[in-house]
Amino acid sequence: MLYENTTVKNGRLQFAGRDTVKLAEKYGTPLYLMDEAKLRANCRTYVNAMAEHFEKAIPLYASKALSCKRIYEIVAEEGMGADVVSAGELYIAKKANFPMEKIFFHGNSKPESEIEYAVECGIGYFVIDNPEELDAVNDIAGRHSVKQKAILRLTPGIDPHTFAAVSTGKVDSKFGVAIATGQAEEFLKAALSKENIEVCGYHAHVGSQVFESTVFYDEADIMIEFVARMREKLGYTAGIVNLGGGYGVRYTESDPHVDIADELRKVSEHIKSACEKYDVPMPCVIVEPGRSIVANAGMTLYTVQAVKNIPEYKNYVLIDGGMTDNPRYALYRSSYTVMLANKADKAGELEYTIGGRCCESGDMIQENVKLPTPEKGDTLAVLTTGAYNYSMSSNYNAVPRPPIVMVDGENDYVAVRRETFEDLAARDM
Amino acid sequence: MLYENTTVKNGRLQFAGRDTVKLAEKYGTPLYLMDEAKLRANCRTYVNAMAEHFEKAIPLYASKALSCKRIYEIVAEEGMGADVVSAGELYIAKKANFPMEKIFFHGNSKPESEIEYAVECGIGYFVIDNPEELDAVNDIAGRHSVKQKAILRLTPGIDPHTFAAVSTGKVDSKFGVAIATGQAEEFLKAALSKENIEVCGYHAHVGSQVFESTVFYDEADIMIEFVARMREKLGYTAGIVNLGGGYGVRYTESDPHVDIADELRKVSEHIKSACEKYDVPMPCVIVEPGRSIVANAGMTLYTVQAVKNIPEYKNYVLIDGGMTDNPRYALYRSSYTVMLANKADKAGELEYTIGGRCCESGDMIQENVKLPTPEKGDTLAVLTTGAYNYSMSSNYNAVPRPPIVMVDGENDYVAVRRETFEDLAARDM
Repeated sequence: MLYENTTVKNGRLQFAGRDTVKLAEKYGTPLYLMDEAKLRANCRTYVNAMAEHFEKAIPLYASKALSCKRIYEIVAEEGMGADVVSAGELYIAKKANFPMEKIFFHGNSKPESEIEYAVECGIGYFVIDNPEELDAVNDIAGRHSVKQKAILRLTPGIDPHTFAAVSTGKVDSKFGVAIATGQAEEFLKAALSKENIEVCGYHAHVGSQVFESTVFYDEADIMIEFVARMREKLGYTAGIVNLGGGYGVRYTESDPHVDIADELRKVSEHIKSACEKYDVPMPCVIVEPGRSIVANAGMTLYTVQAVKNIPEYKNYVLIDGGMTDNPRYALYRSSYTVMLANKADKAGELEYTIGGRCCESGDMIQENVKLPTPEKGDTLAVLTTGAYNYSMSSNYNAVPRPPIVMVDGENDYVAVRRETFEDLAARDM
Repeated sequence: MLYENTTVKNGRLQFAGRDTVKLAEKYGTPLYLMDEAKLRANCRTYVNAMAEHFEKAIPLYASKALSCKRIYEIVAEEGMGADVVSAGELYIAKKANFPMEKIFFHGNSKPESEIEYAVECGIGYFVIDNPEELDAVNDIAGRHSVKQKAILRLTPGIDPHTFAAVSTGKVDSKFGVAIATGQAEEFLKAALSKENIEVCGYHAHVGSQVFESTVFYDEADIMIEFVARMREKLGYTAGIVNLGGGYGVRYTESDPHVDIADELRKVSEHIKSACEKYDVPMPCVIVEPGRSIVANAGMTLYTVQAVKNIPEYKNYVLIDGGMTDNPRYALYRSSYTVMLANKADKAGELEYTIGGRCCESGDMIQENVKLPTPEKGDTLAVLTTGAYNYSMSSNYNAVPRPPIVMVDGENDYVAVRRETFEDLAARDM
């Protein structure tokens, strides 16, 4: 099994020690499940390792991976800060009484109304992406008589060889300002001249689903060298270096295990030696895991509606959800592990394509998956769906979004209720 | 210009005769605009041509392209039926008082609860996709003492060379039952034996964004041959032949113009000769345009937030929307025509990539578009966005969905209101 919270008992798939078929019966399908204990353990891995290995460090939950009130509550209880990418995420975090001073506001294209909302909320830090935004934050902070703390988003010029769609650190990027072109230095100069902005450091992001710390080493080297060079040239020493991102998760058996605590230890050693090399003080280091906090704490359950065997072509299993609740296969051809929850001890026989319910050929969850003979009524489980499934879900085909049910030991409860038809029509005038 | 409803006046882009920059100021951005006159004209093109060229015909609006109450109202007023793909779409159609007898219920994976809802609503026809669904519809109709009219979804085995993601007529398809494998004949036999189902004919779909009627000719040939063969073998003559789909629309100048009325005339002649060849009575012919009803009646307006020129790399224009309100570039690399609405008379200079506001590298609306020099505050227009933009939109990054504003001569009104932060958190418990 991919993770220790996924087991098989009496032929049935268990999640967090609970019978998934019973949970599907109780709450209906499609159904997002979240394992609260696993979610908390994932937070603690980062919190404890960062506390142990760094002098100063802040682990931030990258909440775009899964943004709902209950998740912000849990993440706050576990001592993490949060990065938000919109006033919408900030609003939800605020509803969860998330400590505003531990919020970092990201995004490459923040509307001024959202900048204003964030200043009014008293968030900790803006991650300022570009010169236009720098002016806007300075003006708005001034109008609110605030000296706004901020870090600057830089592009270090690293291609982490993840999907183009989720690679963000290259010079050619819609995010941030490039170090290589000299534009980052001009950006910093401008920021330091702003009356209502306190420049606290730098941020970069080199991609998601990272399995090798080497990309963080390369990124840290570029950032620390930039810290040293700017101290030399502008007399400014950055106090925060935010490396962005987090480690990869196992979607399938072929994905490697990552010992996150040990990798963070190695990153801390690397940064220490880089700081020694350039003779700069060890900064406060930030990482921003999202996927590795929530992905393996999640699972989606569906009900099989029909099975198609097309002789000499392909076999299809058709389910009651699909790209509306998990668009990642349609978008990126993402791999997932798929099982029949009520036949979890049976060996796979034929290969099946898991087709979603939308009237669109591309609505698939996975292709060519070996399954024991499926039938209408079976419960189909897709593992490791806690990240970017709920948050990217849509109402395409006017399909309501599934609920999120938290499983916590013997207890289970609804964190986000199922969308209704009334909800779908609520904005129609 | 792509369409006659898009013009330039005093340097500004006009839509349906109205100044788009003023509409952006009035309603805010991002903003979906719909041209009511164009929408009605598109309906009439199909309604009139079908009435003129076919003995019996039903044009259905494929409402997955854009499903909101006001659109169902307009489409009904113009005399079209509707195809829905979920109980959610049916619910919205019902709220619009859409005539239930003119509803066809599609979908390859209909949950039983939705089948039951549709039977209770008294919809005209099910488009039954597979044997499991046939049993379910028969059982549920029986329980409601209804003889349910239905047509059967067949796969004719045609590859229309559109995108794989939107090609649906191949033998290898999650939709329907294949004629080529003999499975369609068995499916029909089973359907004819069902006590509570009145089999009214066949449906197939050979893809979306079709510019050449030849794919409809090929499809009709296969369908009419199947009608004749089943009459011979089973003594059943289908009364309805539903060809699915509609014609393509012009997203860019390089897309061809289609004279839809004339193409429908040619299709009718082709079907007549096929019926003569096989000596079968001319069936009631159905087509299901969605995109060609709403796409060119729609436009999206954004505000430019920042512009990035990365020397020797690329230039970016960053806007206040993106893949959340238009995921089609992220999904299919779909082409769109992009303009600066407030600089509509100026020639393009450099090439720009239109980056969305989401924290995701793949969030782009279009790449390498020539634009006059853009600046923060410019209004950026994306044309031909009436289909599959609102309907596929999401709340990724907790970004609220834009409103749909209808423009009707001098009048303009909100058909779907802008989503609020409160809406985003409404299902959080």
